[in-house]
Amino acid sequence: MPELRKDPVTGRWVIITTDRARRPADFLRSPVVIQGGRICPFCAGHEQKTPPELLAYRNSGEANTPGWRLRCVPNKFPALRVEGELDRQGEGLYDKMNGVGAHEVIIESPDHFATLAEMSDKQVEDLFWSFRDRTLDLRKDARLRYILLFKNHGEAAGATLEHTHSQLIALPVVPRQVQEEMDGARKYFEFKERCVFCDIARQEASTGQRVVLETDLFLALQPYAPRYPFETWIVPRRHSSHFELCDHASLQNLAWVTRTVLRKLDRVLERPAYHLVVHTAPVQEAPMQHYHWHIEIVPKLTKTAGFELGAGFHINPTPPEESAQYLREAQG
Amino acid sequence: MPELRKDPVTGRWVIITTDRARRPADFLRSPVVIQGGRICPFCAGHEQKTPPELLAYRNSGEANTPGWRLRCVPNKFPALRVEGELDRQGEGLYDKMNGVGAHEVIIESPDHFATLAEMSDKQVEDLFWSFRDRTLDLRKDARLRYILLFKNHGEAAGATLEHTHSQLIALPVVPRQVQEEMDGARKYFEFKERCVFCDIARQEASTGQRVVLETDLFLALQPYAPRYPFETWIVPRRHSSHFELCDHASLQNLAWVTRTVLRKLDRVLERPAYHLVVHTAPVQEAPMQHYHWHIEIVPKLTKTAGFELGAGFHINPTPPEESAQYLREAQG
Repeated sequence: MPELRKDPVTGRWVIITTDRARRPADFLRSPVVIQGGRICPFCAGHEQKTPPELLAYRNSGEANTPGWRLRCVPNKFPALRVEGELDRQGEGLYDKMNGVGAHEVIIESPDHFATLAEMSDKQVEDLFWSFRDRTLDLRKDARLRYILLFKNHGEAAGATLEHTHSQLIALPVVPRQVQEEMDGARKYFEFKERCVFCDIARQEASTGQRVVLETDLFLALQPYAPRYPFETWIVPRRHSSHFELCDHASLQNLAWVTRTVLRKLDRVLERPAYHLVVHTAPVQEAPMQHYHWHIEIVPKLTKTAGFELGAGFHINPTPPEESAQYLREAQG
Repeated sequence: MPELRKDPVTGRWVIITTDRARRPADFLRSPVVIQGGRICPFCAGHEQKTPPELLAYRNSGEANTPGWRLRCVPNKFPALRVEGELDRQGEGLYDKMNGVGAHEVIIESPDHFATLAEMSDKQVEDLFWSFRDRTLDLRKDARLRYILLFKNHGEAAGATLEHTHSQLIALPVVPRQVQEEMDGARKYFEFKERCVFCDIARQEASTGQRVVLETDLFLALQPYAPRYPFETWIVPRRHSSHFELCDHASLQNLAWVTRTVLRKLDRVLERPAYHLVVHTAPVQEAPMQHYHWHIEIVPKLTKTAGFELGAGFHINPTPPEESAQYLREAQG
């Protein structure tokens, strides 16, 4: 019998088709293979092909020359611009404002053939430090209310350049999807006087069936009502609403956990394309008791998201208990 | 300067990148071409390859034999089952229920090579009659609270069989995305004492810049804050919350409008894959003053929905004023 499960944060119901479960081999495999060959603006030595860097972690060298380990630059074709006023206004019944914000690219390695899963822990840690540093810098601008931190890996997940990179988009509004997640978490808090993510982490650690791996600081798990097969969340065990307030030990451990999860996904699903998104609270708001930052990783396994996009409802052919077991048993 | 626009129904902000607008030729073209050749369970003469029909419009013949113009059958691999109790229960902090519901396929033509855009008006009208008839039948079952009516056209939009068909999924819950749309419309109504869709139709008809075509009964338009390029809505001009309460004249005119819009999309975008979804009120609820049924059509033009899926925020490279003009000028 298929099962309808409710995501305890957002209230979203998902169909889990338990009786015709799809195993890893049933999915379309299209391993992400880095081709190289073309002239790449993100490679070491090509620093002049990007706008000047906003941040770089370097072993040597001047700004905008080789010697960097990680480099953050403005997107050459930004969806938003830093200059100007918001200038909110109406247009009959509609509302609009200028596209003020920031759109940055974080080049995770000077090596064209590197992938996050195969980097050293230290390199992955650099990425999370850059997320933190750029967020702390941008949130000084009171116009910017939300900072999206995400990575699309592989062409199938929407990456237009294959050289490993993440993106940052700073918005003057809080995206509706983020607001919904926070609203759901607040409702739970009002009812229970506990954080829903803290409760999830506790229950998952105790039952263990959806856990991928755990450390003292983080839990990697398959959520109870996942939208997509092998959807994986990395949840800090200590309550905290804002990613950018992470301490050194947490970032270090987060790097290890993330890299291990990505390697397990690579093994079980043959180097899939994926989305990785940091879910965190709006930057201008004070720490919240009801919201809890975390990372969501969604491998891109099905050719299309037809039904989801079409009808706004998710059917997931892989129970999270099964996918968690595959990942637990895979080498990290 | 890019522009942030707010959808007046849901409150969702969207970035419209006005200064690097993408025109029809800039999109990846992958025309949907019906190949044929394989044995197709939806073709006339293969009626035994599907479960027995739930409904058919026939020119001749017995049930489950040729002679039909349109045929509705249970999905052979249903995501939900009609039998059994919901049996709602908890699992620690989580909630679940049995996957009770219905999953049906509406085969729109006995002809393997037909497409909705190229059918006769009468054939498209048959489709809308079947949506209406099946909904009126299923809503007698008080367990079923929402009926999703949708079509995925082309493999890129998630259609797994190429023979033209739509789908119906009857759910024991109201999908969160539907609830949000209704909640947004209710907020607007509470503030204005008018239906937001009625206001949209009025304003769009009067400015005309986003209108694709209009009749006495329907308006086809590009919404003010579209998530995707060439996203098109078909909105009835007379207020009505429930699609299944449409009268004969409306269904007849809706068929003509839908077919004309699809032909225009075929011309401007070279027979794109697309999603078509009926947005309508939950079947067990009384008519609503604040909600207004309509159809949303989203052509599948970009290879991936990376950013949207990854970060839950839409960047649309085509201003709706431009796409509306292309469609207005195209032959229907």
